[in-house]
Amino acid sequence: MDTATFRKRLEAFTVETPSWGLANSGTRFGTFRQPWAAKELDEKLADAGQVQKYTGICPRVALHIPWDKTGDWSKVQAMAKANGVAIGAINPNVFQDECYQFGSITNSDPAVRRKAVEHHIECIEIAKATGSDAISLWYADGTNYPGQESMRARKARMLESLQQVYAKLPTGMRMLVEYKPFEPAFYHTDIQDWGSSLMLCQKLGPQAQVLVDTGHHLQGTNIEHIVAILLDEGRLGGFHFNDRKYADDDLTVGAINPYQLFLIFAELVAAEEDPSAVVANCAKACAYMFDQCPNHKPTIESVIQSAVVVQETWAKALLIDRAELKKAQDAHDLTQCEELLKDAFSTDVRPRLAEWRQSKGLDANPLAAFRRSGYLKKVAEERAKKRGAQVATGAFG
Amino acid sequence: MDTATFRKRLEAFTVETPSWGLANSGTRFGTFRQPWAAKELDEKLADAGQVQKYTGICPRVALHIPWDKTGDWSKVQAMAKANGVAIGAINPNVFQDECYQFGSITNSDPAVRRKAVEHHIECIEIAKATGSDAISLWYADGTNYPGQESMRARKARMLESLQQVYAKLPTGMRMLVEYKPFEPAFYHTDIQDWGSSLMLCQKLGPQAQVLVDTGHHLQGTNIEHIVAILLDEGRLGGFHFNDRKYADDDLTVGAINPYQLFLIFAELVAAEEDPSAVVANCAKACAYMFDQCPNHKPTIESVIQSAVVVQETWAKALLIDRAELKKAQDAHDLTQCEELLKDAFSTDVRPRLAEWRQSKGLDANPLAAFRRSGYLKKVAEERAKKRGAQVATGAFG
Amino acid sequence: MDTATFRKRLEAFTVETPSWGLANSGTRFGTFRQPWAAKELDEKLADAGQVQKYTGICPRVALHIPWDKTGDWSKVQAMAKANGVAIGAINPNVFQDECYQFGSITNSDPAVRRKAVEHHIECIEIAKATGSDAISLWYADGTNYPGQESMRARKARMLESLQQVYAKLPTGMRMLVEYKPFEPAFYHTDIQDWGSSLMLCQKLGPQAQVLVDTGHHLQGTNIEHIVAILLDEGRLGGFHFNDRKYADDDLTVGAINPYQLFLIFAELVAAEEDPSAVVANCAKACAYMFDQCPNHKPTIESVIQSAVVVQETWAKALLIDRAELKKAQDAHDLTQCEELLKDAFSTDVRPRLAEWRQSKGLDANPLAAFRRSGYLKKVAEERAKKRGAQVATGAFG
Amino acid sequence: MDTATFRKRLEAFTVETPSWGLANSGTRFGTFRQPWAAKELDEKLADAGQVQKYTGICPRVALHIPWDKTGDWSKVQAMAKANGVAIGAINPNVFQDECYQFGSITNSDPAVRRKAVEHHIECIEIAKATGSDAISLWYADGTNYPGQESMRARKARMLESLQQVYAKLPTGMRMLVEYKPFEPAFYHTDIQDWGSSLMLCQKLGPQAQVLVDTGHHLQGTNIEHIVAILLDEGRLGGFHFNDRKYADDDLTVGAINPYQLFLIFAELVAAEEDPSAVVANCAKACAYMFDQCPNHKPTIESVIQSAVVVQETWAKALLIDRAELKKAQDAHDLTQCEELLKDAFSTDVRPRLAEWRQSKGLDANPLAAFRRSGYLKKVAEERAKKRGAQVATGAFG
Repeated sequence: MDTATFRKRLEAFTVETPSWGLANSGTRFGTFRQPWAAKELDEKLADAGQVQKYTGICPRVALHIPWDKTGDWSKVQAMAKANGVAIGAINPNVFQDECYQFGSITNSDPAVRRKAVEHHIECIEIAKATGSDAISLWYADGTNYPGQESMRARKARMLESLQQVYAKLPTGMRMLVEYKPFEPAFYHTDIQDWGSSLMLCQKLGPQAQVLVDTGHHLQGTNIEHIVAILLDEGRLGGFHFNDRKYADDDLTVGAINPYQLFLIFAELVAAEEDPSAVVANCAKACAYMFDQCPNHKPTIESVIQSAVVVQETWAKALLIDRAELKKAQDAHDLTQCEELLKDAFSTDVRPRLAEWRQSKGLDANPLAAFRRSGYLKKVAEERAKKRGAQVATGAFG
Repeated sequence: MDTATFRKRLEAFTVETPSWGLANSGTRFGTFRQPWAAKELDEKLADAGQVQKYTGICPRVALHIPWDKTGDWSKVQAMAKANGVAIGAINPNVFQDECYQFGSITNSDPAVRRKAVEHHIECIEIAKATGSDAISLWYADGTNYPGQESMRARKARMLESLQQVYAKLPTGMRMLVEYKPFEPAFYHTDIQDWGSSLMLCQKLGPQAQVLVDTGHHLQGTNIEHIVAILLDEGRLGGFHFNDRKYADDDLTVGAINPYQLFLIFAELVAAEEDPSAVVANCAKACAYMFDQCPNHKPTIESVIQSAVVVQETWAKALLIDRAELKKAQDAHDLTQCEELLKDAFSTDVRPRLAEWRQSKGLDANPLAAFRRSGYLKKVAEERAKKRGAQVATGAFG
Repeated sequence: MDTATFRKRLEAFTVETPSWGLANSGTRFGTFRQPWAAKELDEKLADAGQVQKYTGICPRVALHIPWDKTGDWSKVQAMAKANGVAIGAINPNVFQDECYQFGSITNSDPAVRRKAVEHHIECIEIAKATGSDAISLWYADGTNYPGQESMRARKARMLESLQQVYAKLPTGMRMLVEYKPFEPAFYHTDIQDWGSSLMLCQKLGPQAQVLVDTGHHLQGTNIEHIVAILLDEGRLGGFHFNDRKYADDDLTVGAINPYQLFLIFAELVAAEEDPSAVVANCAKACAYMFDQCPNHKPTIESVIQSAVVVQETWAKALLIDRAELKKAQDAHDLTQCEELLKDAFSTDVRPRLAEWRQSKGLDANPLAAFRRSGYLKKVAEERAKKRGAQVATGAFG
Repeated sequence: MDTATFRKRLEAFTVETPSWGLANSGTRFGTFRQPWAAKELDEKLADAGQVQKYTGICPRVALHIPWDKTGDWSKVQAMAKANGVAIGAINPNVFQDECYQFGSITNSDPAVRRKAVEHHIECIEIAKATGSDAISLWYADGTNYPGQESMRARKARMLESLQQVYAKLPTGMRMLVEYKPFEPAFYHTDIQDWGSSLMLCQKLGPQAQVLVDTGHHLQGTNIEHIVAILLDEGRLGGFHFNDRKYADDDLTVGAINPYQLFLIFAELVAAEEDPSAVVANCAKACAYMFDQCPNHKPTIESVIQSAVVVQETWAKALLIDRAELKKAQDAHDLTQCEELLKDAFSTDVRPRLAEWRQSKGLDANPLAAFRRSGYLKKVAEERAKKRGAQVATGAFG
């Protein structure tokens, strides 16, 4: 790949910062607060602006509603712009209100379903008002015990509710449907895997696409295979990037298995240049987002770190010699196939990325530059002043 | 449920004996031979006849081609009949021949694909000739290393090949498509989960349905949820029953988690009486088969044991008080929902089944009766005479 | 087993109620409050008294400190007695305070370690003051990222801290050391499995024993094998019972795989009559406790349900014909070995248990009797009056 | 680390080639033969010589007895030498003979145990005769069904047998004890994890140490944590390197998660310079071996590929700035800790290794040089001449 193409494709790769990844988070055993953690939307936008300022590849912020709800959405768009970012996917929250204990859009109570659907529609309106082109849907819906509910009845209600939401989608706005095998539901989750998610999307229409959260798979799942299938069907809508060793640990990207991310990117890079327009367009339109918890790592640092990792990994995937790979594959030369992948993965792309950053007026090392800026210390002081002490609490007691 | 209905639904539940489950089997580390193990088709039919003779619920034998290939299929049907059984699903084998090293119907070599497709068509012919109404498809196809082949190219070839096979299916014959996450492929398996299998079936046509092998899932998979979804879509074609603790261990049914089988059956029993004809017919037409290895347990005994377990579990599932369960579900009374499932599962159904067996002229205890018959000893002697010594070998060395 | 022996061994089986299992609990996504959930210790003791009143096998309550801390421990013992229960194991909590973010007894800061050790010693004092004979130790200690800390340095600090605690153990008091593979630590957990726990206990001394939480294992772990090993080494100290399908889901006992519990109990029942005094005494002294979350099931009901399940399962394990099993094992008669286990498991022991309960003046059906009592409704009203509204919160936002 | 130290420590790192990794291997579904696959010991030694010739870091060959048994061991040592290699660990095979169906050194039949023990002692003799300093023990021993045998009785027999073997160990020879969670046993495996293996070694004596096969763990296991613990206890004896995505897939090293290997090596590199002599000596004496199957990759190429990968990964682990890491760890600077690990892992060490190879008179690129040599083609022809056609067979049929 010539330098110009490499550079062009590198730049085309951008990832959304999740507003909730800049706030405190924790486990059911408790939350350890960070003094600089963002809480209000203006703080989140400011922090996301820092990520973009230093990495140059995170120009959008995903919002979580109602956490990020404010009175005036036109101001939000302006506030984002002032921080150098735009509003990304809008994420409805239908898991926290007590009325959703036994489900949101799958709840057997029509009033609860209606409330959940209306919240989705509100999110579509917020997306319109903020210039966002996607709503991103994740459901905690499921059951904790065998026999607790009819899984088939819930499946029907899920589809019916989503059809009501889909009907309100304006042209050009996508509905991204995420899956997850378990947690917080511990027996069955209504959308448990890519197969369920794809089935729903097919029934809903072309604006519905599957969102892959890399941490939402049973141990051993071949995620890049799922990615390949969804690309092939033109139904891959986007990603939530993070890493994990066990369950949905929401660690920063590449912390546990960076090679897996490389293999996922290898599928995407290949698909972008696929002769099939369906596949190529699907890859090019893919929405990349982080969904990670800052658990014990400073919020903004953890997003910057992930941003650098995904860009390095993307660059490595671009370096795969696909023509040679095709030859080796055709010859069933397994050794050589692997050598070609490893050759790209083993390449130290950091000098190239440093060069690219400098050409863009960015610091060669985003994390070091951010640390030097003293931003965290500054906002920690400001935010401490704004807020009183809060006791960390877990789910027990 | 009144006694007559219970009895009627109990009797409607039958399971196929796999011919290969009556032969020796082993692991890659070696095979421990059983002196009575069947080898030729006539021996397998005779042994399967024993299973049916003592259990009364295994009236069909699934065949594996070419392992069970003989010159004259009309004779086979008669031979089966003489043993009190009929021919069940025909299973093509496209994993053993050296030409299939890099895939069968997904192979990049058109000649190999053609050979594999033709073998499928041969199996359709065998099904016709033996009165079978289904071909049952499992593929070892996959890759062992990242980058070894294009997963999307293989996906396209898989569909194209299966379309050629589907085109040859006579009216009334089903094509059952099995999935498996791994083994013998250790990086990616072309049909890795129910989502892939369902997607293929949808593209093929109504005679293609998904086959669920209970041992073919990643740890933690909610199989009964998958069963519910496939029933709801009218695409559940059948089952391969076995149990496992780790991977695809092919243990006898209920050896590790008998409650999971009960939960699967709870879905099937409920579906049989579903108001939707699609769902009810799908459940009623579901093809039940064993697919287990006799590993260390005497071949015929292991099938009889599994047959007793599945029938007992089916009987327990029939006992669930579904009207009360619906009430408890509607009230979100989780404790009571579970009590109702557990009430059925805790019931000792053995006296009822003993009674049913005796009403059919069967022994109350199939396994004890089979043991008393001395059949194994007899055939061990006969078969030893027919064969010379064979050295057990594993995959190494 | 004759009836008298069966009855005697049945009665010897009792399980502790965890005080925290009677309070609200949740996931990182939020807590759904129950109107009757206990909060203060007096409420927990009253609720635990209900469990004992209806089941007759839960005569002790495990406490969690500081959640259950009160000013006057002599009153607590009396209060427990008034509710028909005694105080069981004392559980230090060294995971919730902000100072424990990077570890408690493994923390690199000696001051934090000292604080944690002192809390343990305080718990020993509480145990003495309340007539308890065990402290039960679980640690959230671990790291979230590779390289975060030296795992070996933490191992050394863990041992050193526990030695300081062990030195304070009075004669006759046990220290139960629990293990867990992950959560809330997402990269490494200092005591991650039984091997680590056993190694610590061996270094500490004979009063230190391993505690097995049935939900604290990687998928596929053979828990009954671990139980057998620990019994054989005389180091099995106790159990936390619960069930799970995925990770540490803390579901009620037997909800997912009741047969696994039966196999665990089969080891314990066998060990109780082992010729080796070490093994037999270890089994007889084993401390049984629940550790489950009421997640969505009414608190007290969920403990009663688990109590009934464990007693039924214990009764089934007592019914195994061990003499016949030994014979079948010696003959490598695998089919018969399994038949003997299944014969016991398939037996409906509920009539026997109903009879036993009635002979003790208990209702034949604990759950039904508790429901009829109207206790939940009554305390819901009382407790609502005591408390104002609280907003449910999760770990995010 | 200065260049001389780097180089010295790089050179100290050598790995054994397994003789069986140069032969055909397969799965229970069949073996796909390679025309050049070694069969006789002389062929294996010749092939292993090729690995050493091109990589320079594989100077020993592990043998499997009786697969590699010959009449005259003194000739074997000479033959090895002629090929530029020496004999490494001797691996007894007590899983293939029919008498081992229900266990080898754990078998309830004393005659079988004696036979197994004697085979071990024979292997000790072979080790002496070939200049090897270790026997490496892996057992298929276990059961397939709950209740099949007493796990505690087998534990006792395992120890007793190993004590008989240990008694015959000459000074300076080590006994490496491997663990594995499952396969070929599908219910319980007698030595299922590191805890069991360590417990045995502690009871046997100081010459017994734990062997870690990277593929022998349940999903999610933190292997580097186990390595750290075993180093800390001075009981880590060695490694079997391979990679896997699912179960014990025996893929070439680094094929699935190269970062995990790096984290394991980070523990070993750190331990080598530990102030504790126990830890440092344990690390330095650690026996590194491959244990992988050539499945579909050409035998010798697959070992060369793994050798290059482990050396590159070892070099990266050497590059970790441990002083800076310690500082970051002490400061709980998680972001920086990870940056330091990633900095080493991201470094492209291939130029340095090429340089090192050339300084040793080796080709800069071992795989390319081996391919150019035409060795495979040559021996394929020679070996085809020596042997007739063999039909590939699996465990079925």
